[in-house]
Amino acid sequence: MVRTTPSGARAVARCLELGRAPYSDMEGGLYRGYLTPAHRAAIDRMAQWMRAAGMTTRVDGAVNLIGRYDGSTDAPPLILASHIDSVRNAGVYDGPLGIMLGIECVARLAAEGRRMPFPIEVIAFGDEEGSRFPVSMLTSKTLAGSLTGIPEMADADGTRFADALAAFDTSPEQVLAAAHSGALAYLEAHIEQGPALQAEGLALGIVTGIAAQLRLQATVIGMAGHAGTSSMDLRRDALAGAAEMMVAIERTARDDASDLVATVGCLEAFPGATNVIPGEVRFTIDLRSGDAGRRDRASAAILHEIAAIAARRQLDLRVETVQDFPASPCDAGLMALLDDAMAAAGHPARHLVSGAGHDAMNMAPLCPAAMLFIRCRDGISHNPAEHVEPDDAEAALAVMSGFIEKLGELHA
Amino acid sequence: MVRTTPSGARAVARCLELGRAPYSDMEGGLYRGYLTPAHRAAIDRMAQWMRAAGMTTRVDGAVNLIGRYDGSTDAPPLILASHIDSVRNAGVYDGPLGIMLGIECVARLAAEGRRMPFPIEVIAFGDEEGSRFPVSMLTSKTLAGSLTGIPEMADADGTRFADALAAFDTSPEQVLAAAHSGALAYLEAHIEQGPALQAEGLALGIVTGIAAQLRLQATVIGMAGHAGTSSMDLRRDALAGAAEMMVAIERTARDDASDLVATVGCLEAFPGATNVIPGEVRFTIDLRSGDAGRRDRASAAILHEIAAIAARRQLDLRVETVQDFPASPCDAGLMALLDDAMAAAGHPARHLVSGAGHDAMNMAPLCPAAMLFIRCRDGISHNPAEHVEPDDAEAALAVMSGFIEKLGELHA
Repeated sequence: MVRTTPSGARAVARCLELGRAPYSDMEGGLYRGYLTPAHRAAIDRMAQWMRAAGMTTRVDGAVNLIGRYDGSTDAPPLILASHIDSVRNAGVYDGPLGIMLGIECVARLAAEGRRMPFPIEVIAFGDEEGSRFPVSMLTSKTLAGSLTGIPEMADADGTRFADALAAFDTSPEQVLAAAHSGALAYLEAHIEQGPALQAEGLALGIVTGIAAQLRLQATVIGMAGHAGTSSMDLRRDALAGAAEMMVAIERTARDDASDLVATVGCLEAFPGATNVIPGEVRFTIDLRSGDAGRRDRASAAILHEIAAIAARRQLDLRVETVQDFPASPCDAGLMALLDDAMAAAGHPARHLVSGAGHDAMNMAPLCPAAMLFIRCRDGISHNPAEHVEPDDAEAALAVMSGFIEKLGELHA
Repeated sequence: MVRTTPSGARAVARCLELGRAPYSDMEGGLYRGYLTPAHRAAIDRMAQWMRAAGMTTRVDGAVNLIGRYDGSTDAPPLILASHIDSVRNAGVYDGPLGIMLGIECVARLAAEGRRMPFPIEVIAFGDEEGSRFPVSMLTSKTLAGSLTGIPEMADADGTRFADALAAFDTSPEQVLAAAHSGALAYLEAHIEQGPALQAEGLALGIVTGIAAQLRLQATVIGMAGHAGTSSMDLRRDALAGAAEMMVAIERTARDDASDLVATVGCLEAFPGATNVIPGEVRFTIDLRSGDAGRRDRASAAILHEIAAIAARRQLDLRVETVQDFPASPCDAGLMALLDDAMAAAGHPARHLVSGAGHDAMNMAPLCPAAMLFIRCRDGISHNPAEHVEPDDAEAALAVMSGFIEKLGELHA
């Protein structure tokens, strides 16, 4: 067996390896679902790498792979984690890179024959994306002990969750029982999935928290009619109304000139024929900001404005709240350690909010949590074009190692 | 057999009768496709009514039902026609009312034992809506002799057009051979399918022509991205761009303050997830005016404006022309006869453009054509709520009878 020096380049190479068969459930691209054959193959391969890095490995009741590198004491462990599942037609770095970098951190300590004053656990969460079953981040919630029940559910093929678990020799009861016994801290390295770091020429950023997120579903009801026979002034066109609303939604977020983002991602117009004025339109609104107050003020402004548009056009408007996630701030003490590690490695300590959700946001019940963002090319993610430079992974590895050293000094 | 006096109320009642089984191909509503069992049943029932009104009946090679009431000479006939097919979940009057009123016109002459100096043919076209096979107005084009070939085609269930014809003892060759030998004039009574007559408190309107119609397909390409991680200023959101374009399209038509109408009826956004910025949007533009020049100026203005929006937002825009129908003016001489008939019946001679296509627009190769519009409640059509007042049908019958008298005076 050829042992190479622990490195960011190897972490990147391993992500690429896991992007192909047998680690993907689709032909010609990457899709790795929770509890699938690709998931099992990835667990087996990662466990090999973990053991080669000096760890013992086990799989918990929620099918999270846990590699453990004992410390000089039996204190609660530092957790270095991310997720191994993917969306369909995914990039290879979203999730796996954080796990591979955790393995490299441990491999570096093992190569030096060193033990920290706490154990280190590298964890590969089984489900973050929620791309197989209709829940997401199930396995990090399990680990943090915040899951109180598991809904009856099945995947798109009708396979029941319980049966998928049984194929991995576990059960819903064992998922619930898989809560972690206690941890010192949690650090997740993850690609940014956005363009901010690249725009500023930075390899790394420290996440201050996960944005507060509000998902709304709007329904606009007008009157369907013949496109040729209804004069413009007699129309109640639901799509023309929705268009004016979307312009207002975008302008509200732009004018805020902050981290606030507003997105209409999904829109359907009915009946949807070239020669029929749309009588009904349904669209989603996704609003996020690191500051929940800012998000809520924007939401109120948007609702006020689109209601006025509907009234002026004699359209009926219904808006339902689909999801309301509060902001999840990262731990200030751990962020300070990351600041120090960034400075020591020669990086400006750029702080940024994560607009995307991550497993880290579920860790509060278990331990303090922090996140390190790694630049990805053009901000592209959830796409086969997702790309990370090995040099950036190397930079992340240096900062993670520095963080571990500084955490070790605190607990010496 | 109880014979009732010819009347608009009976024409309305017969439309209602044809709205149910066995004259519909769907449960719980009306859908009467071309060459279906409901089409056959409707032909049989209408042929009974035609014969009771003193006509002989035949079915031509395109499965148009033709009732003929001989004149005092063997001159080319006046044709009173409309279509018997319907869209799915249709109203009962769109098409059939014109046929039923034609039958009533003849029944009135027959009741008086009168012959006009020309034959009258009442025709029920088999296909106008195009709701079964991927062509529309096939049977009126056939009758007018303008069809030069029939495409290989099948319905949504895979039934080939030739096989559907065979079930009616005919063939594509016989469809092509079904051109009419020559006609004196064509008059089609049809519901307005729009709200203009109701808005002015009028029962009837004289159609000056069918609007010029342009159908465009626009594709907007931006960059898909994560709704949480892309700041507003770095986005290339295809749907936000399309929204601004739709606002411009509507404004262009409204500002024209004419008969110009512009409709975005169909819009699809991809990938279509709440948390993903749309990377591609496709939408249709339907532009109509009685004045083709006005329509084309509006089209140019819209294309100029949406191209500027795309350029400013760094979006790619492609626009393809899907259909370009010229305006089809109605015959001035026949319109003058309708003006006289309207005045004689005490109606103001309101002239209006038809934004919708009708079989009448195909008649130019055969003979002069005219159309009479009948008010329908709230302008609703292609909908089970379609409604016509019997009094309005009675008014139409009086004007059609007057038109026939005046045409008779011209050809005495």
